[in-house]
Amino acid sequence: MTEITDVISTWLPSDELDIARARLPIVYVDAIPVRVNDLGEVVSVGLLLRARPDGSISRAVISGRVFHGERIRDALLRHIEKDLGSMALPQVPASPTPFTIAEYFPNPDISGFHDPRQHAVSLVYVVPMAGDCAPSQNALDLVWLTPEEAVSDNVRAEMTGGQDRLVRLALAYVGKLP
Amino acid sequence: MTEITDVISTWLPSDELDIARARLPIVYVDAIPVRVNDLGEVVSVGLLLRARPDGSISRAVISGRVFHGERIRDALLRHIEKDLGSMALPQVPASPTPFTIAEYFPNPDISGFHDPRQHAVSLVYVVPMAGDCAPSQNALDLVWLTPEEAVSDNVRAEMTGGQDRLVRLALAYVGKLP
Amino acid sequence: MTEITDVISTWLPSDELDIARARLPIVYVDAIPVRVNDLGEVVSVGLLLRARPDGSISRAVISGRVFHGERIRDALLRHIEKDLGSMALPQVPASPTPFTIAEYFPNPDISGFHDPRQHAVSLVYVVPMAGDCAPSQNALDLVWLTPEEAVSDNVRAEMTGGQDRLVRLALAYVGKLP
Amino acid sequence: MTEITDVISTWLPSDELDIARARLPIVYVDAIPVRVNDLGEVVSVGLLLRARPDGSISRAVISGRVFHGERIRDALLRHIEKDLGSMALPQVPASPTPFTIAEYFPNPDISGFHDPRQHAVSLVYVVPMAGDCAPSQNALDLVWLTPEEAVSDNVRAEMTGGQDRLVRLALAYVGKLP
Repeated sequence: MTEITDVISTWLPSDELDIARARLPIVYVDAIPVRVNDLGEVVSVGLLLRARPDGSISRAVISGRVFHGERIRDALLRHIEKDLGSMALPQVPASPTPFTIAEYFPNPDISGFHDPRQHAVSLVYVVPMAGDCAPSQNALDLVWLTPEEAVSDNVRAEMTGGQDRLVRLALAYVGKLP
Repeated sequence: MTEITDVISTWLPSDELDIARARLPIVYVDAIPVRVNDLGEVVSVGLLLRARPDGSISRAVISGRVFHGERIRDALLRHIEKDLGSMALPQVPASPTPFTIAEYFPNPDISGFHDPRQHAVSLVYVVPMAGDCAPSQNALDLVWLTPEEAVSDNVRAEMTGGQDRLVRLALAYVGKLP
Repeated sequence: MTEITDVISTWLPSDELDIARARLPIVYVDAIPVRVNDLGEVVSVGLLLRARPDGSISRAVISGRVFHGERIRDALLRHIEKDLGSMALPQVPASPTPFTIAEYFPNPDISGFHDPRQHAVSLVYVVPMAGDCAPSQNALDLVWLTPEEAVSDNVRAEMTGGQDRLVRLALAYVGKLP
Repeated sequence: MTEITDVISTWLPSDELDIARARLPIVYVDAIPVRVNDLGEVVSVGLLLRARPDGSISRAVISGRVFHGERIRDALLRHIEKDLGSMALPQVPASPTPFTIAEYFPNPDISGFHDPRQHAVSLVYVVPMAGDCAPSQNALDLVWLTPEEAVSDNVRAEMTGGQDRLVRLALAYVGKLP
């Protein structure tokens, strides 16, 4: 009954957003896309290949801002569709409770989660994808990795901001941390 | 990789089960079937209409024993299929952690959960059903209720053993307790 | 090792906060204070008696904003100390995951949680208090209620913004919803 | 109100227990003892040094059976007192929900959790200790390790049955997995 959201004032001129970012923590959602088998067990984790502003390449999970007036579920689905396309068929969990919280700080030493642009508090979810995932927009590619691959040194080295740790926390939550 | 279960010694002669029940807590799983909308939000709860041993009728959630050698996920799916048929397409959560624990005792005053036959420790899950649910075996009927209906006095009066409270705990967990 | 927080730009001039509130969701923490027995079971819930801006009186849980640069745990402890004094000895849970999320909107129909001033996303925790709680600052009084009292119609009628529902969700989470 | 437990038929003659173990999964509780700082953050993990039946030494978490008629909380506190003494002042979480489930099987390949004696389903909790812990009974020693030490190769090699993984899952749950 509450699916209507009055998304107003959604887009800030970027200078206003810059000012707000310097003054307030920003609400984020992160989603770790997974594939599950018939029993519901996680068999693989999806990571996006992204170009970073400095030109280097990194692997990342889905992550983005929640708009003013927007519900958490709507923000989750918006960012999933933006990154994985409209045929991904995400199964967002029935409970609104994230499996963990990631506190991203400009200072990398505070929490282990790091974002040079801002202080963001992210609600993090594991989301099974039942459909076809096609990386879109600024994602160059999407790769499905086994839990063992996802925690390997190689893959960890390609992730930034503490997202390698977020993947390990997600695998622990679903009982699949190697 | 661990989907093979060596279900051995599964069926106990009922006198042996009776002896064990008098001496050990029994491992159970309970499942509260739900329907979700496109956002993953719970919109209705499924309750089974059952004939009780004394001939009266009660509403109930899915509940049953875990066999020796059987994984929790396999037990969940077995009981769901037994009660809702093979086309129910249950989406068992990716995390193995139940949303709550129900401790059923022969004495109704200990925990509020009551089973005259035994001390059972039940792992309780909310399970969205994506397919067609057809009540089978000893379930007479299956009714889908809104959260408001599911917590109404009428429906509560038709549930036993504390399962009315289990439904309220499930609705709270998914953020839909009225 | 990460207990040092660089709380900078914490206080916004109120007109800047007003502008930000109109454009971005604000990060909040809510805490439901409880008393537990030797087994760790919740035996009572603490509610604050507050004067509302319009002069009426309401019962409320602990709730407040997270500052820029501030960790969730620090914000929780700051608001608990502000409302319950410095001798409350709060036992903040070891896990950073809130037990639920409350999405407060200016429009009361969106989520059931309502804040006329802003869109706030609150991480909600149940926090046992081991010490002496003394209501301070703008709280007029603090009352400890049994779970039965806390969900009674009388008490529900004195709570606003959906916090009566938050108390029920908390009691469900700890297995004590009547 | 439900703290009275009617622990009857608690002790099985060991041959009867052997028979039951061959036929039914056994209900267990595991507890990972931790120390927390003033903010509630986990700073160290306690591991018991135990003599194994084969004479070798291993590190272990607290683990034991739930008796017939016994509540989960009572079983947790009984095993904690048995292993850490009566002055440990455990702070059992307010929620009855375990942070994960460990399914121990005689076959080590099914779930990664292994118990040669039995199929046990264990409810696993992280329990902060506020008092003095003195290893007792069959525990030879207790060592407090930092999260980094607790997941090191050395320590992992001294744990059996998959309990090294259980420690990693616990650290992930509290946001402290390195």
